[in-house]
Amino acid sequence: MPFELPPYHEPDFTEECFLHAPNASYEAVQKDGVAPENYHSTSMYPEYFKIDGEWRLAKESRMDACVVLRENGELAVVEARNLKKGDLVMLGRTELGEEGIYLHCHGFREEAPRIADQFVFRQRRSRETSYARDYDKLIELLQYEKEHGTILWVMGPAFAFDADARAAMQALIEHGYADGMMAGNALATHDLEGALFHTALGQDIYTQKSYPGGHYHHLDICNKVRRCGSISQFIEAYQLTDGILCSCVKNQIPLVLAGSIRDDGPLPEVIADVYQAADAMRGLVRKATTVICLATMLHTIATGNMTPSFRVLEDGTIRPVYLYTVDADEFVVNKLLDRGSLCATTMVTNVHDFITRIARGLGVMS
Amino acid sequence: MPFELPPYHEPDFTEECFLHAPNASYEAVQKDGVAPENYHSTSMYPEYFKIDGEWRLAKESRMDACVVLRENGELAVVEARNLKKGDLVMLGRTELGEEGIYLHCHGFREEAPRIADQFVFRQRRSRETSYARDYDKLIELLQYEKEHGTILWVMGPAFAFDADARAAMQALIEHGYADGMMAGNALATHDLEGALFHTALGQDIYTQKSYPGGHYHHLDICNKVRRCGSISQFIEAYQLTDGILCSCVKNQIPLVLAGSIRDDGPLPEVIADVYQAADAMRGLVRKATTVICLATMLHTIATGNMTPSFRVLEDGTIRPVYLYTVDADEFVVNKLLDRGSLCATTMVTNVHDFITRIARGLGVMS
Amino acid sequence: MPFELPPYHEPDFTEECFLHAPNASYEAVQKDGVAPENYHSTSMYPEYFKIDGEWRLAKESRMDACVVLRENGELAVVEARNLKKGDLVMLGRTELGEEGIYLHCHGFREEAPRIADQFVFRQRRSRETSYARDYDKLIELLQYEKEHGTILWVMGPAFAFDADARAAMQALIEHGYADGMMAGNALATHDLEGALFHTALGQDIYTQKSYPGGHYHHLDICNKVRRCGSISQFIEAYQLTDGILCSCVKNQIPLVLAGSIRDDGPLPEVIADVYQAADAMRGLVRKATTVICLATMLHTIATGNMTPSFRVLEDGTIRPVYLYTVDADEFVVNKLLDRGSLCATTMVTNVHDFITRIARGLGVMS
Amino acid sequence: MPFELPPYHEPDFTEECFLHAPNASYEAVQKDGVAPENYHSTSMYPEYFKIDGEWRLAKESRMDACVVLRENGELAVVEARNLKKGDLVMLGRTELGEEGIYLHCHGFREEAPRIADQFVFRQRRSRETSYARDYDKLIELLQYEKEHGTILWVMGPAFAFDADARAAMQALIEHGYADGMMAGNALATHDLEGALFHTALGQDIYTQKSYPGGHYHHLDICNKVRRCGSISQFIEAYQLTDGILCSCVKNQIPLVLAGSIRDDGPLPEVIADVYQAADAMRGLVRKATTVICLATMLHTIATGNMTPSFRVLEDGTIRPVYLYTVDADEFVVNKLLDRGSLCATTMVTNVHDFITRIARGLGVMS
Repeated sequence: MPFELPPYHEPDFTEECFLHAPNASYEAVQKDGVAPENYHSTSMYPEYFKIDGEWRLAKESRMDACVVLRENGELAVVEARNLKKGDLVMLGRTELGEEGIYLHCHGFREEAPRIADQFVFRQRRSRETSYARDYDKLIELLQYEKEHGTILWVMGPAFAFDADARAAMQALIEHGYADGMMAGNALATHDLEGALFHTALGQDIYTQKSYPGGHYHHLDICNKVRRCGSISQFIEAYQLTDGILCSCVKNQIPLVLAGSIRDDGPLPEVIADVYQAADAMRGLVRKATTVICLATMLHTIATGNMTPSFRVLEDGTIRPVYLYTVDADEFVVNKLLDRGSLCATTMVTNVHDFITRIARGLGVMS
Repeated sequence: MPFELPPYHEPDFTEECFLHAPNASYEAVQKDGVAPENYHSTSMYPEYFKIDGEWRLAKESRMDACVVLRENGELAVVEARNLKKGDLVMLGRTELGEEGIYLHCHGFREEAPRIADQFVFRQRRSRETSYARDYDKLIELLQYEKEHGTILWVMGPAFAFDADARAAMQALIEHGYADGMMAGNALATHDLEGALFHTALGQDIYTQKSYPGGHYHHLDICNKVRRCGSISQFIEAYQLTDGILCSCVKNQIPLVLAGSIRDDGPLPEVIADVYQAADAMRGLVRKATTVICLATMLHTIATGNMTPSFRVLEDGTIRPVYLYTVDADEFVVNKLLDRGSLCATTMVTNVHDFITRIARGLGVMS
Repeated sequence: MPFELPPYHEPDFTEECFLHAPNASYEAVQKDGVAPENYHSTSMYPEYFKIDGEWRLAKESRMDACVVLRENGELAVVEARNLKKGDLVMLGRTELGEEGIYLHCHGFREEAPRIADQFVFRQRRSRETSYARDYDKLIELLQYEKEHGTILWVMGPAFAFDADARAAMQALIEHGYADGMMAGNALATHDLEGALFHTALGQDIYTQKSYPGGHYHHLDICNKVRRCGSISQFIEAYQLTDGILCSCVKNQIPLVLAGSIRDDGPLPEVIADVYQAADAMRGLVRKATTVICLATMLHTIATGNMTPSFRVLEDGTIRPVYLYTVDADEFVVNKLLDRGSLCATTMVTNVHDFITRIARGLGVMS
Repeated sequence: MPFELPPYHEPDFTEECFLHAPNASYEAVQKDGVAPENYHSTSMYPEYFKIDGEWRLAKESRMDACVVLRENGELAVVEARNLKKGDLVMLGRTELGEEGIYLHCHGFREEAPRIADQFVFRQRRSRETSYARDYDKLIELLQYEKEHGTILWVMGPAFAFDADARAAMQALIEHGYADGMMAGNALATHDLEGALFHTALGQDIYTQKSYPGGHYHHLDICNKVRRCGSISQFIEAYQLTDGILCSCVKNQIPLVLAGSIRDDGPLPEVIADVYQAADAMRGLVRKATTVICLATMLHTIATGNMTPSFRVLEDGTIRPVYLYTVDADEFVVNKLLDRGSLCATTMVTNVHDFITRIARGLGVMS
C-alpha cells in the first residue's frame, strides 16, 4: 500500500476568537544572545502570530527557540544564542490567541486514525511492543520520500560495529534513501576503521575476532585521516570502497560531524564548536521530511529538539515531518518523551537488526 | 557454508594422572531428597568418574545435580530433590582426578577457532556487538539440526505480542525447525488470544490498536480453554488456524507449559507443580541438540541450568549442544553468566526482530 | 509530619443513576474452575454490586477475579480457578451501574493533592526522578503502619546479596516494621547462606571476595535445610542468628515461599504448586495495608495483581492500601503499568540503597 | 578504619631485561596535529621510556595520547591534536622493554588483596552486587583525601533533579570534600533552576509537582544568566544561596562546564569548543587524586580516558588515583570496560541515593 501524504488543515482564522485576538507584541533585543523578558518560546508544532491583523506562520520552526519578526515580514525561528541586538522578538506565553499567538497541534487531524500511533505519548512503547506495522509503514514512507522527500539519518557510534548494518546503510545510500547524515567523530572513525581494517575498535566487524594490537586501529585511522587532510582525501589515498562514509562521499551526501569531549583525533571535518555544529545540523534538518535517529541519546535529543513536526514545501504545501528514534533502551526513548521534545515514532530494538530489516524490506540488500 | 559438527576428543585416560587416580567414592542416601555430605555436584561439561578402575562418563548431565551410580553401572545425573533412600551418590569436590572425578572442559577443543566465539564468558556482548556472523552461523546450524538434530525453543510471554514474530515461529514450526517448545501460561494465552481475537492483552498484534473491553480477551481465553478442557479441543472448537500453539498442536510438537504465581487461568495443560514442570522440561532438554531461549529470564535460567554442553547420540557419538539466549537486556544475559550456568551464545536484541531475521534467513517467511 | 489516613467517600447511592440501575445479575457455575460467559472481572478498586436493590461492596478484592454471591449475601472475590460448581458468579462488563455494577475509582479523592503523586500512571518515573519526598512520606507511613497497620514485604533473590541490606531488613523486622514476608526459594537460600557462610552464591556479602569452592555453599544450604527438615530446625541446629529468615522465625513473622522452575533444593517450606502458593500469598495480602515489593518482577506482578487499592478494617473503616514497587530497572516498573495492574508508588533505584535509607530514616540502623 | 595509601613499587631497572633493552626511539612531528607512523600510545598505567640509558617515567599520563620528549628531558603526554611540528614523539608498540618502553601495571601490587576489588574487569558488577564495603571504603577514602588529596566530581544533568542529592552535594562542598567540578550546560542550568524556582525542567525537586508554564523555567534561567553575564553575577543578582553552583562559587571550587550539541542557552561559562573543553577538563584531572563520575556516560568516558591510574606528588611520591563511576545502568559501566578505559570502581545504583548515603556517612547531612 503506497504511502499518501495527509493533508494539512489550516486553522479557520475567520473564527471569532481569531478575529478578536490582539496583534502579537514584540520587543527589540538589547544585548546579543539575550531575549527580552516574556519572550515566546516555540514548540515543534506550527505556530501562527497575528501581525497587523494577519495570522502568519513561522515557517521553519524548532523547539525552544525565539521568533524574530524580520523586516520583510517573515517570522524567523532563532535560537536565543543567535539573537542579535535589535532583533524584534515575539512576546507572550499563551498559545490560544490570547496574546496573538496560536499553536496548532492538530493540523493533520483528519488523519488521526492513521497518524494516531505515531504519537508515542499516548502509549508506552517497549521492547515488547509489536512493531510489525511500524516496519511496513516506514518502508512505504521511505519509498515515498525517495521520490518526493528528504531523508536524514542520525547515527550513534556503535552503529558501525556490525558488518551487516554497515552494508545495509551503504545500500540505502547507494539506492537513494539518504539525503543527509549526522553523527559524531566516533561513528565516522569506526566506519573508516571498518573500511581499512575490517574492524571496529580492533574487533572484526563480522567475526568479532579481536586483532593483536587492534586498539591502535582506531587511533591510526584518526592519525591517517588527519595526515591526509580530509576524509575524502583519505578514502582516495587508501582506495577505500565500502561503508557509510565512502558511500556518502561517493554519492555526495551532505554530512555533519559534531565534536564531543570524548573524541579521539578528531577527524578534520568534525566541528569543534558545538553551537556551530548545532547550526550546521539544523541546516540539514531544515530540508528534511523524514529523520531517523539510530542508537544515540545525545544526537537524538539534539536532533529531536531542532526538528519541527511540519515542513512548508516550495509550493506552499504543508506536510508532516516524520521523526523516528530507534534504540535498544526504553530509557533513551522515555527520556526524550519526558522532555516533551518529540512527536515521533519510537522503536525499541537493536539498530543493527532494525537497519537490515529495513534494507531487506526495501529490496536493496539480500 | 554448511554446518559441520566438531569432533569430540575424549580425555586420554592412559595418562599417568588418570592411571594413578583413585576410584571415585560414593555413599548411600539416608533420606529421600537429601544428599550425603561431600556429594559431588555436576557442571554442564562432560564429567568422568573412575569406577572399578574404569573412567565412565555421566551421559545425561545438567548443572548442580548429584551423580548416582545405578546397579547397571550407569551414572545417572539426578536433582537432589529426586534422590531416593539408598541411591549411591558420588562424593568429591575436586575435578582433576584427585578423587576419581574428571571434568572435561575442552572436549571440542580442536574447533577452538570456530567454537571460540560461542563462549560468551570470554567477551562481553551487548546491544552494540556485531551479531552478523552469529546470524549466519545459527542459520547454518538450524539447517543442519533440521536434518540431524533436535531443536528446542523456549519463549517468554511477550514473544507472542508481535504479528510478525508469531508468523515467523509458525513458519519455523511448519517447516520442521522445531522439535519442542517450552513456555509458561502467559505465552500460550497470549498466542491463543492472537489466534481468536488478533490481539494480545487487548491490543492488536499488528496495528497496536487497543480494543474497547480488550482486557477481557485475555481472561476470556483462559476461561474458554478451561471450558473446552484442553488447548487442542479449544483450537478445534473455535477452528483456529494460526500462531504458535496451533502449529504445535497440528504438527504434534511436544509442548511443556510451566506454571507461575502470576498466572491467570491457568490453561489446563499448565503444570502447577514447578518441580514436576522442571522434570518435564528436562525431559525435552535430554533430547535437544540446539536450545534457543527467547525473552524470558525465568525460563532461560531454568533451561540453562538443565542443559549440558554435550549430548551422547544413540550411536555413541558425543556432540555439542548449542544453547542460545536472546534478550533485549544485557542484564538478563549477564545474570546468567554471573551464575556460571551457561556455555552459550548470547544475543542482545529484540526477539521479534531476531525471529523474523532467522525465518527470512531460512527462507520460510517472505 | 505524622502520617494521616485519608478518609474514604462512599458513592452517594441516593443519586438517580444508582436508584434507577437494575439489580446485578449472576449465573451459576456449571463446571469447577470455569466462569459463565459474560462474567464480571474485578479491578483493584472498590466495586459495588446492586443486590435486591441494595449496593454492596465486594470487600476483599483483587484484580482479574470473579465475584461470587454467597448464601449469606457476602460478595467473595474468587480466582476463576477456584470457582466451584454452583457458585453464583456476577455478570456484566460495564462499570457505571448499567448492569448493577459500580466501580469506584475516586473514593479517596479529597486527598487528591496528597495522593496524586502515588498514582504513577500520571507521570513517568525513572532513575532520574526526585524521590526525596517519597522517602520522607514512606518513612512517615511506616511509622503509622507499625502502630495501626500491617506491613508486607516482597523480595527478589538478589536482595540478600548485600550485607547492609540484609542487616537493614533484619533491623526493620526486629523493630516491628514487618508483619509478613513473601519471596521465593532463592531469596531464602541466599539469606541462609549469608547466615551460615557470610556469602551469597559463594561471594562474601560484605567484601565481595569469592571463596574457593564457594559455589557449593548454595547447594549445601539447600541440602542441609532439607536434612534438618525445616528452616527453623536448620537455624536452631546451626545456631544461626542473623539475617532475614532468622529474624522472621524469631519474631514469628508469617512467611510465604513460592516455588519456581529455576529452584535448587528446594527448601522444605517452599510451596511447589504455584496456585497453592498464590493462594497462600493472597492470604497475607488480605491483611496487608502497606505492601513493598523489592527487586522482583515475577513476585511484584503476582502481588500487584492480588493487592486491592483499599482495605475494609474490622470496624468497617475503608482505608487505602499502599503498594510500593522498587526496582533498578524502569522496564520492570513500566511493564507493571502497561498491565494496568498497579495503583502504586514506583521507585527506580538499587534496592540495597533503598532499604538502608529507609532503615536509617526510621532510626533502626546506624 | 582510616584509609592508608598503598606504597608504589618501581620496576627493578637493574634486572637484565631492562639493562639490555634498547633506548626508545622517537621522531619529529612533520605536521601539526599528526603523529609519525608507529607512534606509541599511552595507557592509564605508569609507563617508562629508556632515554640515554635511563628509564624515565611519563609523569602526567592519560589514555590514548602521544609521548613527547621535551628539551628538558621531561616526557609530556600530549593528545595527537595538540602535537606541534617538531615535537619529538616516542615510537613503538611493545610494552615490555623490547623497544625501550615499559608499561608497569602492578606498581601497587603488594596491596593486591585490598586493591583487587577495585579492578572491575575482574568481576562483573551489577545492580545486584553488594556495595556495602565499597561505601565504607569510599567514605574512608574521602576523609583521607579531604586532608591529603584532591577530589574531583563529574556530574550528569539529572543529578540536580533531586532535592536531597543537591543538598548532599552542597554539604560535601561546604565541608571540604570537593576540589573541582566538571559537568555540562544542562547540570548547571538545572541546578540554578533549583536555586531560583525550586524546580528542574519545571518539576518541583522535592514534591515532583509540575508547575504551570514550568517548561519556561529552564529557558528563563539560560536567558537570565546570559543577561547577567556570568553565573556568579546571576547568583549575586538573584541572591541565590543553595545548590551545587552556589556553593562552588562561594567556596571558589574550580568548575569546568563543557558544551554539547543539545544545549539550550548556553550559560556564559560553558566552553563551546569541545577540544578546549577537554583540555580544561584535563587541567583539573591532572591535580585530582580521587575522581567520582555520577550519572553521565559522555563525561564519564571523557574523564575516564584522561585519568591515569597514578599521580606523582610534589615530593615525588607516586600514589594511586581512585576513579569511581556510579550509574543506574550496567550498560554505561560495561561500555566503559569494553573500551578498556578504566581502572575503576563501578557502582550500579541511583546516584541520588548514592550521594545522600555518602553525605550521611561522612556526617555532613542529617
